[in-house]
Amino acid sequence: MRNINKVKVGLGTRSYGILIGSGLLNICGKLIKPITKEGNVIILTESKIPKIYLRRVRNALSREKIIHSKIILPSGEKIKSFPYLQKILDEMLRLKVTRDSVVISLGGGSIGDLAAFAASIILRGIKYIQIPTTLLAQVDSSVGGKTGINSKYGKNLIGSFFQPQLVIADTDTLKTLPKRQMVSGYAEVVKYGLINDRNFFLWLEKNGKGVVNNNKDKLLHAIKKSCQSKSKIVSKDEKESGIRALLNLGHTFGHALENYSKYKLSHGEAVSIGMSIAVDLSTSKNFCDPREAERIKKHLLMIGLPIKTQSKLTKNAKNALLSRMFRDKKVRKNKINFVLIKKIGNAFLTDTISKSDLKKFMSVYL
Amino acid sequence: MRNINKVKVGLGTRSYGILIGSGLLNICGKLIKPITKEGNVIILTESKIPKIYLRRVRNALSREKIIHSKIILPSGEKIKSFPYLQKILDEMLRLKVTRDSVVISLGGGSIGDLAAFAASIILRGIKYIQIPTTLLAQVDSSVGGKTGINSKYGKNLIGSFFQPQLVIADTDTLKTLPKRQMVSGYAEVVKYGLINDRNFFLWLEKNGKGVVNNNKDKLLHAIKKSCQSKSKIVSKDEKESGIRALLNLGHTFGHALENYSKYKLSHGEAVSIGMSIAVDLSTSKNFCDPREAERIKKHLLMIGLPIKTQSKLTKNAKNALLSRMFRDKKVRKNKINFVLIKKIGNAFLTDTISKSDLKKFMSVYL
Repeated sequence: MRNINKVKVGLGTRSYGILIGSGLLNICGKLIKPITKEGNVIILTESKIPKIYLRRVRNALSREKIIHSKIILPSGEKIKSFPYLQKILDEMLRLKVTRDSVVISLGGGSIGDLAAFAASIILRGIKYIQIPTTLLAQVDSSVGGKTGINSKYGKNLIGSFFQPQLVIADTDTLKTLPKRQMVSGYAEVVKYGLINDRNFFLWLEKNGKGVVNNNKDKLLHAIKKSCQSKSKIVSKDEKESGIRALLNLGHTFGHALENYSKYKLSHGEAVSIGMSIAVDLSTSKNFCDPREAERIKKHLLMIGLPIKTQSKLTKNAKNALLSRMFRDKKVRKNKINFVLIKKIGNAFLTDTISKSDLKKFMSVYL
Repeated sequence: MRNINKVKVGLGTRSYGILIGSGLLNICGKLIKPITKEGNVIILTESKIPKIYLRRVRNALSREKIIHSKIILPSGEKIKSFPYLQKILDEMLRLKVTRDSVVISLGGGSIGDLAAFAASIILRGIKYIQIPTTLLAQVDSSVGGKTGINSKYGKNLIGSFFQPQLVIADTDTLKTLPKRQMVSGYAEVVKYGLINDRNFFLWLEKNGKGVVNNNKDKLLHAIKKSCQSKSKIVSKDEKESGIRALLNLGHTFGHALENYSKYKLSHGEAVSIGMSIAVDLSTSKNFCDPREAERIKKHLLMIGLPIKTQSKLTKNAKNALLSRMFRDKKVRKNKINFVLIKKIGNAFLTDTISKSDLKKFMSVYL
């Protein structure tokens, strides 16, 4: 028997498991069968991941006699858009989707967000399963039920809260992941350390290089820890009325930068810059010792993550960023709810950062 | 104090009230204030309803100092489409919607379905309030949280379950409703009698003409009864895993006919034909006494509702209808879950109607 690590996301009748381990694609049919029952499966996947992954999944489904079809989309953030959403909904209907059908997403965070959103609104919602194949998707986006697409006004502004039935994270898929994507996904791993787990951050300081270099045990530990951390927070606050907002550390600046760069910055890179700004902002407001902020930025740099934009931003660019930040989902009463830190392992929410604070801060730091 | 009739939809933390009465538009600000708190309101309304309704709502909101803006769309089923969905989501973002914002739908069933769907997916879901201005919307579509748009493959195939915070049914708005729409909405009123309330059907036999002719007391009684009936069913089975499917009496044929006619048949007219077919089908399968079926069809005709298509359908048309019916959300394992009746006031679900049954039946009846 294979060694499968299981993390549970406890949400009452909507609870589900995250399965983490090596070789899971080959046995995914068995894992999925109890969910599909007699329904057919529609696999949504992306063109850039190795073809062997789709073949493994299809073979595993065939061995369990699960009827399935596939829809292949381009890779990248551009598919999180209205045209692609409509395209796959039409395609699913053409494939005779029913309320017994199950959607499988096989790929990175973008296809996962899009497929999950489509599953949540086709026939008013059918079951779906995440099979993430990037580090970012395995440690963050495949867990927790946030689905969505982007708008010209910003990232993830249209979507739903809709939990998967199962998440299958096959760590073998990370072996073929380009280094830049591996490092990018690591930004979300660090985040869990920063918000509420100082010990995990200390562990990452020692072992982070091993994680992004695909050291099997270290990688597995980092993924498990991340999923456990996210699971705990999501179980307490599924729809982000409180504590879940801490998971947005680095994301207010991050989303704005990512969207402003037209997604040339990857999500993880943008979040890394966003976290660096957030910890410097914490320092400048006297919430946090500057040595903590330096330690965090040093670690991000050591892994190969950026802590600032490549070139100084123009005044226009900064204004464009600000206007994106004020369209963020966390804005209430024209105030942004910012995630800052008191120290490594202790993040908190505050709405005390004013627009003029931000302007002043950006003129110094960006 | 005005006489406001209140029907509660009991759904735990998602419970809400349906307020029914005369003159409610003028006081809707007061009714809505506890929901908006400090958030702004975005009113989605349609061009064909009298302008005075929007003015009344805006004045009532202004009196309570509720900040609001409006989006006006064309009337009719065509707005339940991807292009209009995208248009209003963009417009809402441009108007700086936040998670504290509240969407109000002011108009008939189409704008209600579209607005509610938009509210359910903008920023992953914000509050919304229904102010239905047609009989159909007041007795059926504004209650119960089914939201959605159409696809080329059929009606309401994309959408969500998402409950409103409040439904405000101002019976004054029905005074200006064209007769055809009044009669059309009545089809859904009859439906409640047929599925589980024989006494209500008997009452309608006596008073139905008064209802569609805007007799104040009779109309109020019919709306209240309908809302109570729907509320009771929705409370028991919000997401249609069982009993709620009874509300689809006449809708499997109805949706297919409506979609096939390119929405030239109104929803109520299509449902009336669909119910007539369903009761005749019940008779032909010996579930129901033919005299019951005749009695129902006689009543529909008396009110001015159609019980069959205007001209005999071609073979191609029938095949097109069949293929639409098999894309219905109620199809499981290639079998349609049909709502039939044993007698007036006793409907039931069955999957015993095969495709060849349907074909035979359609060749005789359509």
